[in-house]
Amino acid sequence: MLDTSSSVGATEHGGLHRLTLTKEDKQIRDILVDWMREAGLAVRVDDLGNVYGRREGKDRELPIVMIGSHFDTQPNGGRFDGVLGVIAAIEVIHILNEHQLETNRSIEIVNFTNEEGERFTPPMLGSGVITNNYTKEYVYQLEDKNGVTFEQALDEIGYKGEEAHRPKNIGYFLELHIEQGPILEKNVKDIGIVRGVKGMTRWKVDIKGQASHAAHPAENRRDALVAASKMVLAIDEMTQHYEQLSTTVGAFDVSPSVYNIYAGKVHFTIDVRHIDDKLRRQALQRIEHQLKQIAATHQVEICMEETRNIDGTLFSRDVMSMIEACVNQLGYSYRTIDSGAGHDAKFMNDIAETAMIFAPSVDGLSHCEEELTLDHHLEQSANVLLQTVLNIAK
Amino acid sequence: MLDTSSSVGATEHGGLHRLTLTKEDKQIRDILVDWMREAGLAVRVDDLGNVYGRREGKDRELPIVMIGSHFDTQPNGGRFDGVLGVIAAIEVIHILNEHQLETNRSIEIVNFTNEEGERFTPPMLGSGVITNNYTKEYVYQLEDKNGVTFEQALDEIGYKGEEAHRPKNIGYFLELHIEQGPILEKNVKDIGIVRGVKGMTRWKVDIKGQASHAAHPAENRRDALVAASKMVLAIDEMTQHYEQLSTTVGAFDVSPSVYNIYAGKVHFTIDVRHIDDKLRRQALQRIEHQLKQIAATHQVEICMEETRNIDGTLFSRDVMSMIEACVNQLGYSYRTIDSGAGHDAKFMNDIAETAMIFAPSVDGLSHCEEELTLDHHLEQSANVLLQTVLNIAK
Repeated sequence: MLDTSSSVGATEHGGLHRLTLTKEDKQIRDILVDWMREAGLAVRVDDLGNVYGRREGKDRELPIVMIGSHFDTQPNGGRFDGVLGVIAAIEVIHILNEHQLETNRSIEIVNFTNEEGERFTPPMLGSGVITNNYTKEYVYQLEDKNGVTFEQALDEIGYKGEEAHRPKNIGYFLELHIEQGPILEKNVKDIGIVRGVKGMTRWKVDIKGQASHAAHPAENRRDALVAASKMVLAIDEMTQHYEQLSTTVGAFDVSPSVYNIYAGKVHFTIDVRHIDDKLRRQALQRIEHQLKQIAATHQVEICMEETRNIDGTLFSRDVMSMIEACVNQLGYSYRTIDSGAGHDAKFMNDIAETAMIFAPSVDGLSHCEEELTLDHHLEQSANVLLQTVLNIAK
Repeated sequence: MLDTSSSVGATEHGGLHRLTLTKEDKQIRDILVDWMREAGLAVRVDDLGNVYGRREGKDRELPIVMIGSHFDTQPNGGRFDGVLGVIAAIEVIHILNEHQLETNRSIEIVNFTNEEGERFTPPMLGSGVITNNYTKEYVYQLEDKNGVTFEQALDEIGYKGEEAHRPKNIGYFLELHIEQGPILEKNVKDIGIVRGVKGMTRWKVDIKGQASHAAHPAENRRDALVAASKMVLAIDEMTQHYEQLSTTVGAFDVSPSVYNIYAGKVHFTIDVRHIDDKLRRQALQRIEHQLKQIAATHQVEICMEETRNIDGTLFSRDVMSMIEACVNQLGYSYRTIDSGAGHDAKFMNDIAETAMIFAPSVDGLSHCEEELTLDHHLEQSANVLLQTVLNIAK
């Protein structure tokens, strides 16, 4: 299945370019529906284009177990991000079928629409609506850069289903995903048991000094780049005061940026992530304080604006314990880990007992063509998913 | 005369846009020739388009005194840069004429072609050829951004004169110019006696780290922007170790420069200026050493390349002393000062006893429409030029 998925939207250098609700997305959805039917699942599509495949349990009244992830990718993204979680879920069903294992709880597989958020921003729209984080009306009118709305795109590929097909009575949600970071590989661990998704705050910062000629004496300059450089270092050094804190100055534009004039303006963005909202806010306050001090020292104006804020998510301790038990039973090594990136599981956590399993990423790379998870890690992580599903559903 | 000059190529906000060898340049040259003739000067134009006006001295065999500057400006430049030096020179002649003062040495006024170097790069082409710093062939084939050569442009405005008209036997060269910096104003001085022109070295620097997602943990990042920021500060702080040293990181481009990815590459330029070549080279060595250390610490690759190097120029101590004596005689305050920017005087220093007089710039601004030198400073600086010319020529 992985090879088939890797061929739909394949890029020159071994990646995947399969943006949500495009013809490549339709193609992989059609294949997915076939796979689900071959696995004996009852397929349905909801009004967000989320595709579900259901295997009935013995007790239809029990809250169900849902497993899955997403098939859409970043532009020139990798073959594993999202894909692993859907394919492993189907494998779980095949193994249950092969061993004729009936479960008490029904199991549903899901492929969520627009997890990546690259074509339609924000990300995680499919899971966002069914968990009441977004309204359907809001999502439908979102436009891609060509002015095509989400609803039009959904209609065009024939995956606008029924609101009545949204899932009901979800007891548990499990998502297997690649780590997208180097921690498991660096610590030589087979499995990551995810504690939650880090909260994130984004700011944009504008620094205004006074540009002038390189012949201007060193004293009395109000060089916006020198001030901004000191800020970059202050923001970076903040990570040394809080374990697991990550800070990023991403966009960074200098004006006028010519060889014989020092900078009058710098615009940059800050991205701060931590799973503990209180600590994240504390770090942000310290960053703000330091940036203002630096601005005052260098006699530049500073303007900071928060552009996004998402609080952290802590997954179900119970499900984490169940995953841990399965990992131990299988004899794999593991590490508890926080996810720096968002996932559908983040929203599903609002309505179900949720957890995530991470498989190691080679060199920690993701969202790029080089993205790779080794075969034995694919297998081990799928085994953990299978065992955990069995423990919960049986 | 200043008001007339300010009207030829005037910009909306009180500046001048009079690029070399354009129709505006032709217009001001025609006016200049009229002014020179009205002042009784013998006008000639050489093969670079440099315009000279000669007032014969009693002894035609004595090396002459040349005074002047340039009438071309930067794009949307100011009204004083270059202009002051030419107009004050004509005023000097008028005053000599009014007082029927004959001098021993002949005096020549000059308006050099393409001092600014904006339309045809490098700058200071007119003075560069007559001082053998550039060949005529090299200069003639230089093209502006529309593919027009220097020679074509010179021909077009009718200012391609004779090689035989280049000046001979120049004993002294004096250039009055605006400071283009804040030092005189800040120190409340009327006059700057210029010690020389700072040498300059330019490097381009490429930093290569590894870009990745903002979700990547803070440890083990090879963030090119964090490394480059530390370098910017090291380059800036070097000015604290050498008096009069100026360092500028001008161009600065970050890649990919998006909000959720930290930088994989940074390209920037360094401009280092000091009048003492040995100290400048010492500072550059220290900068190079520190940049390599920072690169090693942050595990980024660094590539440094020198793109330009011009050694410093020290003007004539004798002429500086003569200027100082005149300033004292006139009762003005002064300060010895180094020029951070290049001037025609820099090249003229190769063939004549040369010095420069600076008039204060309001707020240190130049190469912009706000460029301003106050009336009493215009007058004082012209008086110093007059007295010095008289002392040398008489």
